[in-house]
Amino acid sequence: MKAWIITIGNEILIGRIVNTNSAWLAKKLTTMGIEVRKMITIPDEEDDIIQAFREAIRHADLVISTGGLGPTFDDKTSEALAKALNRRWVINPKAYKEVKRKFEAANMELTEARLKMAKMPEGSIPLSNSAGTAPGILIEINGKLIVALPGVPREMKAIFEENLEKILAKKAPHKYYAEKSIGVVGIPESAFAPYIDKVMKKYPKIYIKSHPRGHETKGPVLEIHITTYAETEDEARKLVEDAAKELMEKVNELGGGITHQ
Amino acid sequence: MKAWIITIGNEILIGRIVNTNSAWLAKKLTTMGIEVRKMITIPDEEDDIIQAFREAIRHADLVISTGGLGPTFDDKTSEALAKALNRRWVINPKAYKEVKRKFEAANMELTEARLKMAKMPEGSIPLSNSAGTAPGILIEINGKLIVALPGVPREMKAIFEENLEKILAKKAPHKYYAEKSIGVVGIPESAFAPYIDKVMKKYPKIYIKSHPRGHETKGPVLEIHITTYAETEDEARKLVEDAAKELMEKVNELGGGITHQ
Repeated sequence: MKAWIITIGNEILIGRIVNTNSAWLAKKLTTMGIEVRKMITIPDEEDDIIQAFREAIRHADLVISTGGLGPTFDDKTSEALAKALNRRWVINPKAYKEVKRKFEAANMELTEARLKMAKMPEGSIPLSNSAGTAPGILIEINGKLIVALPGVPREMKAIFEENLEKILAKKAPHKYYAEKSIGVVGIPESAFAPYIDKVMKKYPKIYIKSHPRGHETKGPVLEIHITTYAETEDEARKLVEDAAKELMEKVNELGGGITHQ
Repeated sequence: MKAWIITIGNEILIGRIVNTNSAWLAKKLTTMGIEVRKMITIPDEEDDIIQAFREAIRHADLVISTGGLGPTFDDKTSEALAKALNRRWVINPKAYKEVKRKFEAANMELTEARLKMAKMPEGSIPLSNSAGTAPGILIEINGKLIVALPGVPREMKAIFEENLEKILAKKAPHKYYAEKSIGVVGIPESAFAPYIDKVMKKYPKIYIKSHPRGHETKGPVLEIHITTYAETEDEARKLVEDAAKELMEKVNELGGGITHQ
């Protein structure tokens, strides 16, 4: 199951905000056995949003967007998604009930701008937002899932954990993910690279990546990150531990040190 | 001048690392008057990298990638960029000198894996890396600039500030950027939205975005972010201040409070 994450918002593109939403979602999906293949960040422009959704739907089984669901003029995700799918953009009765209830409870009028938060592509399932006002949007088309979540991290996380996660878990490939990180000192990345290559060839399900934390030629520090998916939790764990053991033996042979594992 | 930023690295796609490189670059480019139109994050796979570069070059005047320039098997950016451009991937004499000098100074052999850091698409200009080993890559094609930087933030920033920034400054539209942030309490985003719309219509060069920080119906807190580009620094500053003043008057009229400006 392949996923694309779309981030909608000028504030990311001007570097005002670091995109923590994507990282949070990617971590969640990865541990569920869903592979995130691409992340895109685009401005609050209808054409960009339509294009991004269409491209993502062509390539991915799951598309999750964040941002652009609020009441302001530049919240364009819902309407653009309707256009991307060639669906009508209509008031969703369930979303309307939720939005209306929230504004009534706050003794606030349901203006045109606020009503927008209840409008969704026809056939959407609203995902209740316990941490804010705008519900998320879920659409299933030919077995593919398209999800639009708010950009406010607290609301995005609440909707994901309370409403979306259980739906995705049913669709996810039920693969188990395991990871392990080893800290290595005294061996430059370029000297260790061939051994990583060898271990990856021996264990085809294992993915190993080295991250240089020090300086390649002056005091090298490496973080070796080992990841895998497997059919059972035990198998995933064992694969990672076996690969880690071989790498650590090689570190010893080369005269390096292990700082953590 | 429109820019795309490409981030290459599985560690971002599994949510292990938050993409701070893109935010840092976006902030830098924005303040130089260069508009970042899209950010993409892709895995360490040759096909994905080739495709991403080709798509970015079609749409942007400036393409900057980070990641994938190191000595390991999964550092594929340089070779993939050569393929994307249909250029040969060759040892760059200037880069070779820099890489060789660094390994010699460390009394380390220049292995095949390390030599890779001196290979670039034919016709590249290497950007010296004072904080690490792999030089950055700069290519100019039909007035477009394509840049590949390392993924290690310290190295990426050093190359940008010491070597790339002055090259970009010459190409940038010499537009001045100004921004201002206003904190507002007591007015829900949905109630303030129409006034933001009005001010933006009055000042076509101004962009205003509201960020809900509190809860829409229970204790709303808004951050209003005003940005603009102009031909002079004074004009940019004046535009932002004028727009801010009108918005703050409206906040007062609506009975809200200003927490910061």
